[in-house]
Amino acid sequence: MIIDCHGHYTTAPKALEIWRNQQIAGIKDPSLSPKVADLKISDDELRESIETNQLRLMHERGSDLTLFSPRASFMAHHIGDFNVSSTWAAICNELCYRVSQLFPNSFVPVAMLPQSPGVLPSTCIPELEKCVKDYGAVGINLNPDPSGGHWTAPPLSDRHWYPIYEKMVEHDLPAMIHVSTSCNACFHTTGAHYLNADTTAFMQCLTSDLFKDFPTLKFLIPHGGGAVPYHWGRFRGLAQELKKPLLQEHLLSNIFFDTCVYHQPGIDLLNTVIR
Amino acid sequence: MIIDCHGHYTTAPKALEIWRNQQIAGIKDPSLSPKVADLKISDDELRESIETNQLRLMHERGSDLTLFSPRASFMAHHIGDFNVSSTWAAICNELCYRVSQLFPNSFVPVAMLPQSPGVLPSTCIPELEKCVKDYGAVGINLNPDPSGGHWTAPPLSDRHWYPIYEKMVEHDLPAMIHVSTSCNACFHTTGAHYLNADTTAFMQCLTSDLFKDFPTLKFLIPHGGGAVPYHWGRFRGLAQELKKPLLQEHLLSNIFFDTCVYHQPGIDLLNTVIR
Repeated sequence: MIIDCHGHYTTAPKALEIWRNQQIAGIKDPSLSPKVADLKISDDELRESIETNQLRLMHERGSDLTLFSPRASFMAHHIGDFNVSSTWAAICNELCYRVSQLFPNSFVPVAMLPQSPGVLPSTCIPELEKCVKDYGAVGINLNPDPSGGHWTAPPLSDRHWYPIYEKMVEHDLPAMIHVSTSCNACFHTTGAHYLNADTTAFMQCLTSDLFKDFPTLKFLIPHGGGAVPYHWGRFRGLAQELKKPLLQEHLLSNIFFDTCVYHQPGIDLLNTVIR
Repeated sequence: MIIDCHGHYTTAPKALEIWRNQQIAGIKDPSLSPKVADLKISDDELRESIETNQLRLMHERGSDLTLFSPRASFMAHHIGDFNVSSTWAAICNELCYRVSQLFPNSFVPVAMLPQSPGVLPSTCIPELEKCVKDYGAVGINLNPDPSGGHWTAPPLSDRHWYPIYEKMVEHDLPAMIHVSTSCNACFHTTGAHYLNADTTAFMQCLTSDLFKDFPTLKFLIPHGGGAVPYHWGRFRGLAQELKKPLLQEHLLSNIFFDTCVYHQPGIDLLNTVIR
């Protein structure tokens, strides 16, 4: 069975984006705030958005199952406060759940969290619990930089994040470490911020003893691990300099890379280096 | 002739670091500020620091000439104000110049700039001119993030940087795009910040038409281009989506990568992808 571990609902019906834009407008002018009930997307619309896109490609390319989370760039945790993120995460997670119900053999939900800059990660636990218990989510997306490119949160190795890790361990739930849209003009979202975050997250784990505290914690670092496999020799050397164990032993029981590398030489390198 | 385009004076005599620490102490307590004349490093000390390190390795490994700039992590442009950076850059550049005078067949100076967060890049021009005219510098190191990991400066494609580019073009001077120490706890300096900056700089150029404004501008992106060659397919796709020319035509007459990738599979990928 071929499982795509990094699927996002990038093709959700337009009504979702329109609702979100109204929600954002409502941050400045509450009279514009939409109600959750204002968003109406039928099962037929969901079916069509999936059958003509993800499911068609899964059939064409021969993959069987997609772990399916809300669109990463739309999470935009930097917008608004915790309540804004909370409502938005609930809506997006429910849509992924509905897709998984409509296509139970092809999609399994992964939850986004209602993170917000400067807000404690423990506030995300109710949404996490709901997605696991009610929606059957098998993983979460964890944003190491809810500020959207300003990197104001502590590193992933900091105790700041431990409440999330405790829940992950309790439910044997892996996290994909995935940032969202960059609102820092220096960083293009998909061309710089995503890859930088992957590299950054790996190095935050390397310098720490996080996986001593949580031996069963599992992180998926997407986009082929950012710059990591290409610079495996650099990271090997850094681990040595920092008196850490060999990378394989230090990190690779807990960190996994996807194969989201869009050309053959990159895929070949990944398969050569990470075994 | 084999030229190492990315050499730093990482082995400068300890007196340099001691002086710098005093300079930093002097930011808070001016009574502790050292004078430039307090730093005394003899030619013999310089010779020894080079002969037992860089020059020995150049002979062992068969390279002929090193383009030699001050230690990147010591630039630390985020420390103090323009005057602090200015004095520090002058000292570091003079040391690289003296090394080049002691070993004229082996070292050619490359200048660091007295950048400082929030200060206009044009303030760096006098030091740049001095290094070119008096020291024979053949390049500069340009820090795209003088804040040290907070990324508060505009992207390299912004007119903010144009005064530097005008001088580079005037003197046919390439710039290595090289950040310095990270003071953001999220980013390990050499394991994340350096590689992220390389990827970021490439993407800032990709999304812009900088090289239409400066057709002869030359950027060296170090550390094998950060994540770029490994994700060449991603960047090719982004250029296509942004209606830019093919990467080769759009960027590779102006952007060059070094081969600072510390394992063979990475070097092999680089040589396969960038030709």
